[in-house]
Amino acid sequence: MRIVVVRLSHRKKRDQRVSTHVALVARAFGAEGIFYSGEKDKSLEESVKKVVENWGGEFWIRYEKSWRKLLKELKEKGFYLIHLTMYGININDALKTIPKKDLALIVGSEKVPGEVFKLADLNLAIGNQPHSEVAALAIFLDRFFKGRELEREFKDAKIEVIPQEKGKKVIKKQET
Amino acid sequence: MRIVVVRLSHRKKRDQRVSTHVALVARAFGAEGIFYSGEKDKSLEESVKKVVENWGGEFWIRYEKSWRKLLKELKEKGFYLIHLTMYGININDALKTIPKKDLALIVGSEKVPGEVFKLADLNLAIGNQPHSEVAALAIFLDRFFKGRELEREFKDAKIEVIPQEKGKKVIKKQET
Repeated sequence: MRIVVVRLSHRKKRDQRVSTHVALVARAFGAEGIFYSGEKDKSLEESVKKVVENWGGEFWIRYEKSWRKLLKELKEKGFYLIHLTMYGININDALKTIPKKDLALIVGSEKVPGEVFKLADLNLAIGNQPHSEVAALAIFLDRFFKGRELEREFKDAKIEVIPQEKGKKVIKKQET
Repeated sequence: MRIVVVRLSHRKKRDQRVSTHVALVARAFGAEGIFYSGEKDKSLEESVKKVVENWGGEFWIRYEKSWRKLLKELKEKGFYLIHLTMYGININDALKTIPKKDLALIVGSEKVPGEVFKLADLNLAIGNQPHSEVAALAIFLDRFFKGRELEREFKDAKIEVIPQEKGKKVIKKQET
């Protein structure tokens, strides 16, 4: 099963850090890659690629000018589109209705066009209070994978953390 | 049982949106309030207060100049200090070791002083991959409350979302 994330309407100045958090959460919690639309942003792409280079795995980031075209293409390819929004059906009810299909998880920034609500197969709320698309994505993936995603290993990592009670322990792997 | 969040070394320009997300996640996922240190930031405080005013509940935000003093005071008051950090013990192992005490959840921004790792009673990792303090806080609270926090009601809300399959439905309550 494939899981991809779609980040809508990225704004270079305003969203750079939040979009980076969205991408890193996508990677750490088990998505294979992220599409983003809005403003193309090299430095967003580079900061994500740098994390992949150091911390391993095959996570990708790709810019798509038209989110409408992207969502329609994903749908044609058989992806089930889940829009994470505080206006949707609460995850406590919605999680069990998700079919066993490839998933595209859509996260907006402040104002999401009405069309996205219609194109989505499921509008799913991580609670109906205002909070954060970063949190929404993390909670969705954590609930979906039942916590197992946090124990995955990432191939070809140059850096690895050894969990410690106090302080930091990092292994840097030498290339041979 | 009380749960408070401590956000370390906030930088006005760079962290405003991420710190806002941290605060809104703290509120939506069941903490009673947030302390922050670093640069005092009126507009961060105001955006959090505005959410509380509209969406209800009694969540608070408070600036504390010295995180060191704050953490020591919390400890003296009997709080168990949990530092959320990718270098700590994985939540899948650590969650069951948490005593039944008031909790202070510490989230840093990029570089956390070594002293924080020592002052903390528990350094807990939401996975050992780089991602986001926003996600880490959300996952901790979601796991801790077993998902029940998303069904809480917030007192005196002026706005409430009615979950919808498509589109947005919001109730604005009139004051009487």
